[in-house]
Amino acid sequence: MKSDLDPLMAARELVAIVITGGEHQNTPRAYLCNGVDIHGGMVVKRQGSEPALIVSSMEIEEAAKSDLTVYSYDDLDWAQIYKDAEGDQKKAFPVFWGRVLEKFAIPPGKIGLYGTGDLNVWVERARQLSEMYPDNPIVGETGMTLFDQAFVTKDAGEIHILREVADKTCDVLRATWDYIARHRAEGETVVKADGAPLTIGDVKRFVRRELMDRDLEDTDMIFAQGRDAGFPHSRGSANMPLQLGQPIVFDLFPRQLGGGYYHDCTRTWSIGYATEAVQATYNQVMTAFQTALDSYAEPGQPTHTMQDAVLDYYEAGGHPTIRSKPGTSEGYVHGLGHGVGLNIHERPSLSHLAKEDIFQKGNFITIEPGLYYPDRGLGVRVEDSFFIDEAGALVSLTTFHKELVLPLRGS
Amino acid sequence: MKSDLDPLMAARELVAIVITGGEHQNTPRAYLCNGVDIHGGMVVKRQGSEPALIVSSMEIEEAAKSDLTVYSYDDLDWAQIYKDAEGDQKKAFPVFWGRVLEKFAIPPGKIGLYGTGDLNVWVERARQLSEMYPDNPIVGETGMTLFDQAFVTKDAGEIHILREVADKTCDVLRATWDYIARHRAEGETVVKADGAPLTIGDVKRFVRRELMDRDLEDTDMIFAQGRDAGFPHSRGSANMPLQLGQPIVFDLFPRQLGGGYYHDCTRTWSIGYATEAVQATYNQVMTAFQTALDSYAEPGQPTHTMQDAVLDYYEAGGHPTIRSKPGTSEGYVHGLGHGVGLNIHERPSLSHLAKEDIFQKGNFITIEPGLYYPDRGLGVRVEDSFFIDEAGALVSLTTFHKELVLPLRGS
Repeated sequence: MKSDLDPLMAARELVAIVITGGEHQNTPRAYLCNGVDIHGGMVVKRQGSEPALIVSSMEIEEAAKSDLTVYSYDDLDWAQIYKDAEGDQKKAFPVFWGRVLEKFAIPPGKIGLYGTGDLNVWVERARQLSEMYPDNPIVGETGMTLFDQAFVTKDAGEIHILREVADKTCDVLRATWDYIARHRAEGETVVKADGAPLTIGDVKRFVRRELMDRDLEDTDMIFAQGRDAGFPHSRGSANMPLQLGQPIVFDLFPRQLGGGYYHDCTRTWSIGYATEAVQATYNQVMTAFQTALDSYAEPGQPTHTMQDAVLDYYEAGGHPTIRSKPGTSEGYVHGLGHGVGLNIHERPSLSHLAKEDIFQKGNFITIEPGLYYPDRGLGVRVEDSFFIDEAGALVSLTTFHKELVLPLRGS
Repeated sequence: MKSDLDPLMAARELVAIVITGGEHQNTPRAYLCNGVDIHGGMVVKRQGSEPALIVSSMEIEEAAKSDLTVYSYDDLDWAQIYKDAEGDQKKAFPVFWGRVLEKFAIPPGKIGLYGTGDLNVWVERARQLSEMYPDNPIVGETGMTLFDQAFVTKDAGEIHILREVADKTCDVLRATWDYIARHRAEGETVVKADGAPLTIGDVKRFVRRELMDRDLEDTDMIFAQGRDAGFPHSRGSANMPLQLGQPIVFDLFPRQLGGGYYHDCTRTWSIGYATEAVQATYNQVMTAFQTALDSYAEPGQPTHTMQDAVLDYYEAGGHPTIRSKPGTSEGYVHGLGHGVGLNIHERPSLSHLAKEDIFQKGNFITIEPGLYYPDRGLGVRVEDSFFIDEAGALVSLTTFHKELVLPLRGS
């Protein structure tokens, strides 16, 4: 969590961190700006000091909402530097960088570069600035980065927000269930009042509106039916009519409007009735889900033990898995879960290969076993997002029910 | 445009380019994937060859829509490599990189790294991979990058899409004008049928729904009234009721749902009536707008000449500008315009300092003069997006009218 940043910097011997990038969604920047989505701008944090924010003078008013100390680029003479460089960014930026080092009195030592941005520009800039200012080499890391580590646990303020987003997301699941239920079938096809088929595109439009009414935004939900449900990341075809008795994998992972915290959950629905094959597969996935929960004992436990338990269960049932058959596209083809926060995928990873990750108080993680047989027109996944609370208990924030069969009551 | 990529690579002596990054919006990746938004994945293009796409096996079905040759990470032995490295990404990735070089038969020479991603990871990875595979150093650039240059001009397929997005955006402007007009005033406050004030939040919700109904998404529109309109990038306060006679800067820059091409346009509205000060300022901005258009002659002309003409006009009228007073937050405080495409801000830049940018056939650019006096509760901006067509003419794709006063007809 955020209070870990100084020790995490110390462990890496970083005298400062700089978070930069363009106008893109930039989770480390949003994190340090207390959730305020700045369009551009740079955060500078010296070890042991509060972070400060440098933005274009046009963004000053928005930036002030971050509660950080805010400077405009022109407070660091950008306009003059840029003019002196005759509008050549390539010349101007290194001079500006010198002003940053000076303004924040950065002592000699390594500076960690973070943020989401243009890889091309920053790979070259980091090299160039390290050469020009040899007292302050700019460094990156591979593997588990400083922010990966900080994001692993959430503080009380973050959990409060995550719970709100979870509740709203569950309201949308409920509204979507009811929306579909209000329709009727003609033969095996779900139809609207006027007899036109209800399509996946119709449902997604409904879902996006419901999200928006709650100040959430879709980030490319999955609503995949039949064979498509057999590919874990197939988004579903907008023009496909909803059919009775087909498995539908509905994976909803919205975030706060304009960038912010996510919720992540999946339900599998079968409209009207479920075939024997779908019901049997669903039962196994629900058993896998319960197996996962039962395998959890306490914080400190390696996360891979939970995936191991699920792999054991599936393999005993004769399903290929990514452990028994790496790269398989049938059976159980993905990891059991992952952290969620300002990013949809964070650490810890619930993978049999992630040997170093452990459960910790403050984790916010998904548990999402599935089974996929596209050649049988079949895919099932069930996913809740869980918080590990102060007592070390695993608490689901996805409160929506897990019924498989969605009965129609339209007439 | 896309057909320029090989010459642009040759000019930089790049034997290959690799576009990578995480799950973020990644415009170079989307560009090469023909607009398909892949969640993760790497594009590899050897000079003179078609690009190929490497994705997780779970994304194969979605990736196929790109029309590129698609490989899964496991086609390059990722699962085995990751297992051999005991789940340590830090060890696994460099081995995988060797497979990429082999699979695509990359000859000795520089590889350009592009894409939007985690700066921290790639700054270190680029260093490490260049060291391990010295025949293929990984390089970046500052200044005008390869993709900056490619994005400067749009091909016929892109213009077709940009026109569609423009038309839909104008439909939303029209719908929003009509939506506000359907209300009535109580005193100076715009109110709904039930007498509650119509707020900026209400208008933004309406706009987002209208965008969504047209498969567009908001990327943080500006709807700023009164003093807020005086800060070019103030988003506006959701709880603020709409007032008669206040300038409202409405800057709408949506993109295709899920990531894609943008449109960018601004109107300034004053509900019911305009004060003399607002009307006078508006007239000057409209004259500046016409001055900009009149200054355009033909492709090849430096873009700064257009900004120079507008600066001359404003300065003659006694307004401070970023040329006469760099860093000013009053008067004319920003550049005249910018390219638009898969990014909201691209080259060319219409700045008096961008001496190298020229107008070209295939440009898609904004022209957006404004005047800002926050201390007088005042800000005005008018913006259309223009295409430079095959005949070299500047054609506005923002067809919505430029009336200042929005009369209410609710009763």
